[in-house]
Amino acid sequence: MDFSSFLTSLGTSFVIFIVLMVLFAWLSTRQGNAVVYYPNRIVKGMEPWEGGSRTRNPFAWIKEALSSSEQDVINMSGIDTAVYFVFLSTVLGILVLSGIVLLPVLLPIAATDDGVKKNEHTSNTTSNGTFSDLDKLSMANIEVKSPRLWAFLVATYWVSVVTYFLTFKAYQHVSALRATALMSNEVKPEQFAVLVRDLPNATSGQTRKQQVDTYFKSIYPETFYRSMVVTNNKEVDKIWGELEGFKKKLARAEAIYALSQRNGQGTRPTNRTGFLGLCGKKVDSIEYYNEKIKELTQKLEAEQKVTLREKQQGSALVFFTSRVTAALAAQSLHAQMVDNWTVTEAPEPRQLIWSNLAIKFYDRIIRQYVVYIVVFLTIVFYMIPITFISAVTTLKNLRKLLPFLKPIVDIAALKTVLEAYLPQLALIIFLALLPKFLFFLSKTEGIPSGSHVIRAASGKYFYFIVFNVFIGVTIGGTLIASIKTIEEKPNSVFDMLAKSLPGNATFFLTFVALKFFVGYGLELSRIVPLIIYHLKRKYLCKNEAELREAWFPGDINYVTRVPSDMLIVTIVLCYSVIAPVIIPFGVLYFALGWLVLRNQALKVYVPAYESYGRMWPHMQTRIISALFLYQVTMLGYFGVMRFYYTPILVPLPILSLVFVIVCRKKFYGAFCHTVLEVASQELKETPHMEQIFKSFIPPSLISNKQEDEHFEDALSQVSRSESSV
Amino acid sequence: MDFSSFLTSLGTSFVIFIVLMVLFAWLSTRQGNAVVYYPNRIVKGMEPWEGGSRTRNPFAWIKEALSSSEQDVINMSGIDTAVYFVFLSTVLGILVLSGIVLLPVLLPIAATDDGVKKNEHTSNTTSNGTFSDLDKLSMANIEVKSPRLWAFLVATYWVSVVTYFLTFKAYQHVSALRATALMSNEVKPEQFAVLVRDLPNATSGQTRKQQVDTYFKSIYPETFYRSMVVTNNKEVDKIWGELEGFKKKLARAEAIYALSQRNGQGTRPTNRTGFLGLCGKKVDSIEYYNEKIKELTQKLEAEQKVTLREKQQGSALVFFTSRVTAALAAQSLHAQMVDNWTVTEAPEPRQLIWSNLAIKFYDRIIRQYVVYIVVFLTIVFYMIPITFISAVTTLKNLRKLLPFLKPIVDIAALKTVLEAYLPQLALIIFLALLPKFLFFLSKTEGIPSGSHVIRAASGKYFYFIVFNVFIGVTIGGTLIASIKTIEEKPNSVFDMLAKSLPGNATFFLTFVALKFFVGYGLELSRIVPLIIYHLKRKYLCKNEAELREAWFPGDINYVTRVPSDMLIVTIVLCYSVIAPVIIPFGVLYFALGWLVLRNQALKVYVPAYESYGRMWPHMQTRIISALFLYQVTMLGYFGVMRFYYTPILVPLPILSLVFVIVCRKKFYGAFCHTVLEVASQELKETPHMEQIFKSFIPPSLISNKQEDEHFEDALSQVSRSESSV
Repeated sequence: MDFSSFLTSLGTSFVIFIVLMVLFAWLSTRQGNAVVYYPNRIVKGMEPWEGGSRTRNPFAWIKEALSSSEQDVINMSGIDTAVYFVFLSTVLGILVLSGIVLLPVLLPIAATDDGVKKNEHTSNTTSNGTFSDLDKLSMANIEVKSPRLWAFLVATYWVSVVTYFLTFKAYQHVSALRATALMSNEVKPEQFAVLVRDLPNATSGQTRKQQVDTYFKSIYPETFYRSMVVTNNKEVDKIWGELEGFKKKLARAEAIYALSQRNGQGTRPTNRTGFLGLCGKKVDSIEYYNEKIKELTQKLEAEQKVTLREKQQGSALVFFTSRVTAALAAQSLHAQMVDNWTVTEAPEPRQLIWSNLAIKFYDRIIRQYVVYIVVFLTIVFYMIPITFISAVTTLKNLRKLLPFLKPIVDIAALKTVLEAYLPQLALIIFLALLPKFLFFLSKTEGIPSGSHVIRAASGKYFYFIVFNVFIGVTIGGTLIASIKTIEEKPNSVFDMLAKSLPGNATFFLTFVALKFFVGYGLELSRIVPLIIYHLKRKYLCKNEAELREAWFPGDINYVTRVPSDMLIVTIVLCYSVIAPVIIPFGVLYFALGWLVLRNQALKVYVPAYESYGRMWPHMQTRIISALFLYQVTMLGYFGVMRFYYTPILVPLPILSLVFVIVCRKKFYGAFCHTVLEVASQELKETPHMEQIFKSFIPPSLISNKQEDEHFEDALSQVSRSESSV
Repeated sequence: MDFSSFLTSLGTSFVIFIVLMVLFAWLSTRQGNAVVYYPNRIVKGMEPWEGGSRTRNPFAWIKEALSSSEQDVINMSGIDTAVYFVFLSTVLGILVLSGIVLLPVLLPIAATDDGVKKNEHTSNTTSNGTFSDLDKLSMANIEVKSPRLWAFLVATYWVSVVTYFLTFKAYQHVSALRATALMSNEVKPEQFAVLVRDLPNATSGQTRKQQVDTYFKSIYPETFYRSMVVTNNKEVDKIWGELEGFKKKLARAEAIYALSQRNGQGTRPTNRTGFLGLCGKKVDSIEYYNEKIKELTQKLEAEQKVTLREKQQGSALVFFTSRVTAALAAQSLHAQMVDNWTVTEAPEPRQLIWSNLAIKFYDRIIRQYVVYIVVFLTIVFYMIPITFISAVTTLKNLRKLLPFLKPIVDIAALKTVLEAYLPQLALIIFLALLPKFLFFLSKTEGIPSGSHVIRAASGKYFYFIVFNVFIGVTIGGTLIASIKTIEEKPNSVFDMLAKSLPGNATFFLTFVALKFFVGYGLELSRIVPLIIYHLKRKYLCKNEAELREAWFPGDINYVTRVPSDMLIVTIVLCYSVIAPVIIPFGVLYFALGWLVLRNQALKVYVPAYESYGRMWPHMQTRIISALFLYQVTMLGYFGVMRFYYTPILVPLPILSLVFVIVCRKKFYGAFCHTVLEVASQELKETPHMEQIFKSFIPPSLISNKQEDEHFEDALSQVSRSESSV
């Protein structure tokens, strides 16, 4: 790629960005699109165009984003989103502070030397297709052993020190944010509950319920309120799901009938009872659904009773009347054997993964290790099955195996397209499904809370993306060819990484630019959700509930967003000293990201859970991991430059490790648990314990009938009269 | 060493043992020796010869030891001692169960083969000086690649399985012992207190005392009782020490005077006031000491006030009125920053290391790492300084450097002795001081409790002894000669270990025999303490207190005892399959040890602390470490025997690792903390909080005056009226 084609690519991306911006400015002011561009406000019952932003000024959103405070973000989108912005601004800060020093110092030093011509080792750089104009601004332009390398060495230290300082500050800030949120004087149900797993076998004649109640009442005689035994809800969930489905269908059928009546026809909708409504007897929909609902409601009630009485499992939620007791209990060992009566903090009711609660202690550990192994294999060897599938699914094979496709496949135009894309098809599908797969794997580990699953999946995706995109692209084929060298000298990986880095600078520059121009353009303009919404509204949705479902935006989707950002952090840090021109691109990425997502957080996304910033320690560790990779790479690269003072860099990676350990020791504890000085803050009002208890009942177990009849056994009131003080 | 000299050595040891036994039988029945042979009973206020053991039957003690129950041991010597017996009997069980299978099966298999003659590789064995009679009974007598090796392979598995099974059972047993002891309905002061370290800087105008009280009262409004701020007691301890010294001297002078009066002389004792009582003015002792005591008492009182008011440090003991709260608090995070308000369980008052309490969080971590590095260097390179010192301290050098020694050194007889021992002198002194040095190092880490320091020192000594004695003797010079091979192929260490093992079997047989015959003979007969006691009684002790000091036995001394036992475990396990004849020796060692120490525990040693079996997890881990070493060695040895099915052994070391992790997960938590279901047991009586509080006041701070005047600031009653419910 030469310089002009680089500029062309950059220009194209920029044009796309501008077009998307204009589209956004135009579309977002139209009344009908409010639900796409302001759903978070609508959900919170606010006016979409509050504060006069429905002007024709296409840059109003920028002003709003910039003027919004952290508190605004917390109010609209919670602590987790605020923490994500801390992450963005921290990285932005690191890059800006690095750029201020590195750009004016290193670029002239590099430009005035002419190592490119002299250095033998850079010959492979130009052969990799780098244009010389950029090369002149990079470290590759310095002569080997030149004293000018001192400047680059100091720069390496500068970037590291800036990173340590800013991430430490950010950690303090996030820790304070978390503490403030947790010590809020509002009643949060999860702060009064703990999750108890791994109950030992109950003694005969004792129900699970009694077992849990006796145990906790004896330890916490004053603050124990009530317990909720976890039940196996598979059956009841299924029935409830069917019931809800029919309720929706009924509402839909009624809406259609109403519409038809209005049109003067009055035909009652019909449907078939067989498979997918395609075959079977034709029946009147409204009657049929009503009947079904009646039938299922009875079935549900019966199943609810059975579930609550007979499907109790070795796990429970225990409620206390005091936040402090719940915080204390969640951090303490209750039984002599650690694999009994495991007590942990209860997640928010909405993020509780009910089906994982009953998984046993050792089962969880084994699942975890199995998942780790699967993830490791996926990361390292995912190309093998994909290559195999690609080899098999050629056009020729397809025609042979699926002869009925022949007439379609033989169309000339289609053939060309298929021939071009079929080989990559498996890879594309794999990459699209990967986050879902990793999410599924993380859930399989037996983690009880949704936010934790997302953190786990995001971590896995981070390793995948850094290993495959960054290291994969950089080292590429070289690695496999010289696998022997690595076996003998394992640290030669970093040498190789160092050697191949400068050659790929352009690739990553383009990559970052594409990411922020096109990526954030699409993000802001929400073209895809807009189209989907309008299509659904026109052809599918028949009532309010369905419409709401069509525009409901979901949350920021940390599973893929954070690892993608991390990839950019890794790339920019690793190139920061070698080719400082990448820094402005990084700055632009995070600045634009901050701006666009600030808008989206305030107006679009509705958070699915609140974990009070528990994502932060992961983010911080990964920033430092990126820094570590950068430091080790620089060590290798200075070695390649045959610089005598390279060993001066050796303390850096060690410092990074120490820094991570210190941060972990100092801050991490408070992210794992609710700290007591926080939990002991006074509440605005005495908590309504009954309401707290009810908020944890899964919807499929909520009964429509008289409450007292049902709440037995698993949910039970057995001990209420005694224990609720 | 040939067979006859082995027998001679064995015979000699046995004769010494018999002599010591007879001595014990005779000496222990004499009235005047009761304090040496029955101090534990005397301390507990029991009759020394209770239950008619003062018969002439020299084996009565054996009957008593065998018939004593675990509960007897707990009553007389506490849980820690009982756990030590669990350790002894577990190892005994492992060896007996291994021996029952291995001896009758492996010995005939080995004896009927004749690999010694045929195998090339054993030639180095005989050259190492092993006698052929023993060699015939070992694995070295099997031909290479022989199918007979299957038996040895199965035996390797059998020993491992037995070890897993018995240590697991023992872990369960010890865990139950600990739980029972902790849930006892007697009031134990340490169960009502927590140790709080790393207090943040107090806000201005607030004393440490107020800071601690406010903080804990807000979190535990109902159960907080009172706090005791840790003070810097260096000065007050010094004065108190001097005062106690003079009190002792006074008592002694009075005793001498009384004696002199009784003899009709009535001369008042005198002493000199200068250095060590050797120079200075001659004064009347009783007057002088009385004056000094008066002076120091005043000084002490003044210093106590100053200490309590002005030397408060960033650490405190906090008392609760409930065991459950103390247990909860000790396990929970109190502050948002983990390095503030660190709360841990309070150790027993008697084992609290007051001077370590104020050491700060990161200071402790740094100290720990520094100590680890020092220990590592000591273990690996201790021979270097010793060799250097030995080289310097030759007789010739001594004469040159210390010319005044000349006349002494020139005596012919002394010269011979010195020439023989001087080279080893440095090593002997080093080995004698090593446990003390390791104890000192462990204390420097900043550990707050005495028993923990002992565990830490014992661990360090274990690594030293196993690394140097076992691996050192076995591999010896070979290792250093072939250091190059190891660099290239690190796992060749185990090959080498495997190769040199059979050659050293006799050495270790003799070593184990010496250990149990002479070691336990000396232990039981207590010849050395007896002689020291009688000498002191005759020439030094003038009153009851001094006499008591002379016979007071101290505790079992786990610092060196446990690692020594561990060394035997390691040796016997490693040889169990290679040379099964070692098993009976191991059995004898642990059986005799159990018997002798049962006697000593019941009658002699007075435990210095009670840690409720916290030593056990360390013991168990080290047994499994020994097993791991054994498994890896066997893997190497089967390799040396060129046995095709050697890889069948590969799962064993992995299994050991998994086993350790599982045990740790399952049991270890309950050893680190007081578990809640244990702490929530009801007490016999409501705890007398004032008494609990007082038991933690260090002796140097206890005032003789009116209490109320003194207990301010650090000990304070400020909040008592408010908080004690």
